Amino acid sequence: MTTALEKPAISNRGRSVPASAIRLLEGNANAAKARGVHIYHLNIGQPDIETPEYIRSRAGADTIIAYTPARGTEAVRKVMRDYYAKLGVALESSELMMTTGGSEALLFAMLACADPGDEGLVVEPMYANIRNFATIGGITLKPLAAHVDEGFKIPSAEVFARAITDRTRFVMLCNPNNPTGTVSTPDEIRAVAEVCREHRIFLIVDEVYREFVYDGRKPWSALSLEGFDDTIVVADSVSKRYSACGMRLGCIATRNAEVIGATGRMAEGRLSVPTIEQQMLEGIADLPANYMDGIVAKYQRRRDLLFAGLTSIPGVELQLPQGAFYFIARLPVGDALAFSRWMVSSFEVDGATVMLAPAAGFYLTPDLGKDEVRIAYVLVEEDLRQAVEILRLAIEAWNEP
Amino acid sequence: MTTALEKPAISNRGRSVPASAIRLLEGNANAAKARGVHIYHLNIGQPDIETPEYIRSRAGADTIIAYTPARGTEAVRKVMRDYYAKLGVALESSELMMTTGGSEALLFAMLACADPGDEGLVVEPMYANIRNFATIGGITLKPLAAHVDEGFKIPSAEVFARAITDRTRFVMLCNPNNPTGTVSTPDEIRAVAEVCREHRIFLIVDEVYREFVYDGRKPWSALSLEGFDDTIVVADSVSKRYSACGMRLGCIATRNAEVIGATGRMAEGRLSVPTIEQQMLEGIADLPANYMDGIVAKYQRRRDLLFAGLTSIPGVELQLPQGAFYFIARLPVGDALAFSRWMVSSFEVDGATVMLAPAAGFYLTPDLGKDEVRIAYVLVEEDLRQAVEILRLAIEAWNEP
Repeated sequence: MTTALEKPAISNRGRSVPASAIRLLEGNANAAKARGVHIYHLNIGQPDIETPEYIRSRAGADTIIAYTPARGTEAVRKVMRDYYAKLGVALESSELMMTTGGSEALLFAMLACADPGDEGLVVEPMYANIRNFATIGGITLKPLAAHVDEGFKIPSAEVFARAITDRTRFVMLCNPNNPTGTVSTPDEIRAVAEVCREHRIFLIVDEVYREFVYDGRKPWSALSLEGFDDTIVVADSVSKRYSACGMRLGCIATRNAEVIGATGRMAEGRLSVPTIEQQMLEGIADLPANYMDGIVAKYQRRRDLLFAGLTSIPGVELQLPQGAFYFIARLPVGDALAFSRWMVSSFEVDGATVMLAPAAGFYLTPDLGKDEVRIAYVLVEEDLRQAVEILRLAIEAWNEP
Repeated sequence: MTTALEKPAISNRGRSVPASAIRLLEGNANAAKARGVHIYHLNIGQPDIETPEYIRSRAGADTIIAYTPARGTEAVRKVMRDYYAKLGVALESSELMMTTGGSEALLFAMLACADPGDEGLVVEPMYANIRNFATIGGITLKPLAAHVDEGFKIPSAEVFARAITDRTRFVMLCNPNNPTGTVSTPDEIRAVAEVCREHRIFLIVDEVYREFVYDGRKPWSALSLEGFDDTIVVADSVSKRYSACGMRLGCIATRNAEVIGATGRMAEGRLSVPTIEQQMLEGIADLPANYMDGIVAKYQRRRDLLFAGLTSIPGVELQLPQGAFYFIARLPVGDALAFSRWMVSSFEVDGATVMLAPAAGFYLTPDLGKDEVRIAYVLVEEDLRQAVEILRLAIEAWNEP
């Protein structure tokens, strides 16, 4: 006879792997949709830009949809190598490995750098899903705080140096930053890389939003810094750059042969990344040189519109973000989770409401970010205008005596 | 200045994650191909059957290739639920979670059951890539041996019971078995499941080859055993069943709510499985009921041809396999790795040679399987005939005084 007592216990990591910070209010949102409420999604970074025809038009299927080499086809690695060459980063194909999205690039990079019980330094607020990857790998993340009133600048080299312990195996940065929209300069990144090199630890840089930089900034990669071939590991993705999140293709780029070797053997274990999508991605070779320009200009207009709208709401605090397509804003609502849940469950204006991502899930330190939200600007301008007005009215209603 | 001493050290897991046992001789094979030698690949399980038109014809791309829910679209989970219902296994959609291939299903299942330092029991020879997943998760695999002269039957319940320690968190079986081709009966699986239930540990069953059973056997799933809802976790894949290895779709199926919860949160961390392929997979709803029959009959003919051919070579030992599309055969060559490498590098008959997978990589215990190879029968019959003849001549040449 089976009794409740006889149930096997799942692992501690299985128990502690966190639910998505971005999808926290999905149940409430679904209930609202079922009632016919229109929801403006400011909570999730799913771009509304079309995936380029150059990619989509190649979506045929071979008669046999076969495995590809574990590290990606030669053709697709050549396309990625050419992309990096245009960026001014000379890489061999052997220094590039295709992954199942940027997610797997981050996971494999972390696993190759740190063992169970080891530590990694991160800057909070941070890309929330690295908590999941750390939990999978038994790695402890130690947070260093960035602050809204300093535009979420990354901490100085000294702060990183002081935080490094015997167990620290890597520093992780995300540049341009999700969730803050902050762009670090080459000098700022180099300063952290020097600390890492000195302490013989890795610098993992998530550059998924590389091309999304505003106000005349130029895209660049930490791989173009000289003297850090063994130190720097870059995680990349085609999801945002080509508005192709569902293709699940990314890559690890590093000149550290041991890291590319270890992550390559991890890749052999899972055999292959999606075959059709690798064939499709070859289409980026045909993209016009100025493909990103119009997209970046569009996001910059959205940023400006949203920044102007949000800063016109009394009590809302944020700095003008320089890249990616997110803000972290402090709202005058006390508890941003309670406010966000109430807004999506019980508040509407003309049959519509707004979904935000409460920012606490982007922090590791308890109690940080409780009055902050992450806002993604992946909607058309008219929708962003509507969303700002709904948010303004919601904050007023929430704070009514 | 950077010196060699200043290089950061990769993790122990990064260092110890093994290279693929199946692709061990790929370098030698590529060199042979470059010399114009034709290679019959008996080393890898990439089927030569066409992916069904019902799947391929749906390979269009939406204008925006977007994320799907982390656990898979509702539509594709319904299609998988219907597949299981036809198999006689009633599952809720919530008991099914889509994964990036069977690989991720195995990885997530192992991670949800065991923490770093914990142990899992496996039967060797085994599916080699679970070593990679165990290394990623810091899990120690403890092998129990199956033997060629017993047709690689899984050990008895008593043997499993004796091997369980305080650190054992799961038993893993693969049925039908890759690499041995052995099919366990419901009674054999139930006996192991009872031991697991009694010891409050999990039974993970890799059923990727479920439909590939011969001599009138019927496909079935361990999920149809009664009384093991909390014990049994099944890993599945569409790769072999629909000859669609490059689609990277699989699933975890279990009635254990904690396991499906934990693996679902792991899935949230990596956001989505490939979108186009999920849309394509909906096509299996249209497959004729007898779709697998012709394919299974074809593999059975290949098995018979290969079995007859191999057993006619003096000194080759193997048992008639009952499922999957692999054999493990003992060859009269002493060192099967040296022989296989020599055959692919230096032996040819009329400009062709044969590539085998040395079986040592499928064992955990050192020195086991040194004179064995894994042979996949995914080639057309005429090619299999040629391959057997080349192998016969190679063994003769290798053993010439």
